[in-house]
Amino acid sequence: MAVYTDVSFEELEILLADYRVGAPLSFKGIAEGVENSNFFLQTDKGAFILTLYEKRVREADLPFFLGLLEHLSAGGIACPQPVRNVKGAQWSTLNRRPAALLTFLTGVSLRRPDVKHCGAAGAALAALHAAGADFPLRRQNALGAQSWPNLAHSLLDQAEGVQIGLRKLVDEALRKLDGHWPHNLPQGVIHADLFPDNVLFMDSKVSGLIDFYFACDDAFAYDLAVMLNAWCFERDGFNVTKSRALVSAYRKTRALSDEEIDALPRLATGAALRFLLTRLHDLINHDPMALVRPKDPREFAKRLRFHLRVKSPTEYGL
Amino acid sequence: MAVYTDVSFEELEILLADYRVGAPLSFKGIAEGVENSNFFLQTDKGAFILTLYEKRVREADLPFFLGLLEHLSAGGIACPQPVRNVKGAQWSTLNRRPAALLTFLTGVSLRRPDVKHCGAAGAALAALHAAGADFPLRRQNALGAQSWPNLAHSLLDQAEGVQIGLRKLVDEALRKLDGHWPHNLPQGVIHADLFPDNVLFMDSKVSGLIDFYFACDDAFAYDLAVMLNAWCFERDGFNVTKSRALVSAYRKTRALSDEEIDALPRLATGAALRFLLTRLHDLINHDPMALVRPKDPREFAKRLRFHLRVKSPTEYGL
Repeated sequence: MAVYTDVSFEELEILLADYRVGAPLSFKGIAEGVENSNFFLQTDKGAFILTLYEKRVREADLPFFLGLLEHLSAGGIACPQPVRNVKGAQWSTLNRRPAALLTFLTGVSLRRPDVKHCGAAGAALAALHAAGADFPLRRQNALGAQSWPNLAHSLLDQAEGVQIGLRKLVDEALRKLDGHWPHNLPQGVIHADLFPDNVLFMDSKVSGLIDFYFACDDAFAYDLAVMLNAWCFERDGFNVTKSRALVSAYRKTRALSDEEIDALPRLATGAALRFLLTRLHDLINHDPMALVRPKDPREFAKRLRFHLRVKSPTEYGL
Repeated sequence: MAVYTDVSFEELEILLADYRVGAPLSFKGIAEGVENSNFFLQTDKGAFILTLYEKRVREADLPFFLGLLEHLSAGGIACPQPVRNVKGAQWSTLNRRPAALLTFLTGVSLRRPDVKHCGAAGAALAALHAAGADFPLRRQNALGAQSWPNLAHSLLDQAEGVQIGLRKLVDEALRKLDGHWPHNLPQGVIHADLFPDNVLFMDSKVSGLIDFYFACDDAFAYDLAVMLNAWCFERDGFNVTKSRALVSAYRKTRALSDEEIDALPRLATGAALRFLLTRLHDLINHDPMALVRPKDPREFAKRLRFHLRVKSPTEYGL
């Protein structure tokens, strides 16, 4: 977590001439997200985040990402809202990078959410799915199920060096999903990365959802499967009380069909595989000069093993 | 600039049980300083910085650093003030590191301060020297003149690989200072690192001085010489209008003796050498896994060459 592209106060001032956000009082780089450079800006009118999009976020995707944030904000979801500049644009250019000014959300992300937090986060996901339903833009899930076999093939030779047995595990998961991936589930805009890092809490209530830069169109239930992976594992394994709280709260706002429930073990397997593969990729291709430490892929190897043994959705507390 | 040691919200909450600073509303790692891990904390009572001291700041020095901040705050200097915990201690322990909670200062640091800013910063330095005069603790300048010959020797073999001529330049500076370093100038607490990064402005007024982790006892005029290096060079060379503004503003609060004025070229040479050597050290010993990019030593080679050619303090605008 670091700032990749520095922004001086003088550069900020030139940018702010195009915005009506008041006079700057404080401006600091923050260690947030692994994809972009982020700065905290306090002005006499409020608090903002300035984001410079680095190479992993394509400028062509910004109308989707920033449009979605506007759409969700209008729909009552607490998420960062892009501040349009005086020309009405959602983003500008700063230091040769697309740069957006977004409203700052109060709240803190938790490292060890409890059952109550899992419930609140599940409800927030369902509200997000409902609010995103009529968003008109589309974006394919670049890290969806269709991408995993090729990604896996590019990594398998080196996977054994990370952990013995990883190659066999990935092969087993790919074989299990091959021809059995659920393609006809209800789809719409999903967050696709709703880890505890990306949910802000005030006391036990969700005060905001952040980091929508993996958002895309995919099965709603896949988003839930990502959360089963991201919120319900503890050091000693899967906590079914947490997953029950998460899924139950979700279902109060958006009903799950029988097909979605049946598909959960495969969706959860796929989600674990997705994070295992991308973390493996980031570790194997890690630039030692990069300002970010790669995350440990082995956590997701454990989670993947768990899902491969699941025989019924009831094991997730349904 | 990065966060070296992560702090979860849960860990923060345990720490905050020992402080009376209100309920947390926001908590984020910030990219500030190269020595420590820093976090921005907003509570319902105010804004704070949480600093975890990494290996380059010794715990034994914290009574000096934090006591100085309290002393200077009491003396009217706008600088971060350590918040004492319920036991009255200036720092606690968090994630096996000493950790202090400090008040947050509004203001922004400038990359290209103009003449007016140089004047304001010079006045702030003099006020700092005056306010620190009766501070009872002492700390030797670990990076003072006595340290340069050994530091230089440990680097000279590799210096040529950084820039051709660097070895000769460092030798020339050491020879010039050997036996001619001014030892009897008025001394007291100095900041020793008052670069533009460490001065916060609101409009054209100084709103705060930060990052006192090189503060020590040394000649007041050496602190001024550090600022001549840090504030008055532009891409095309030394700007005497800036140095005149800086020194004149300083002298309005604290008079310079004839000895201090005479010594300025040697002090400025020494200050340039100090930053050249420490940057060389950081570059040569750079851990590629470190979360910080080393600063370019060659800037200070240029500045050192400038000072070596100076024949009279009048060239600094005095």
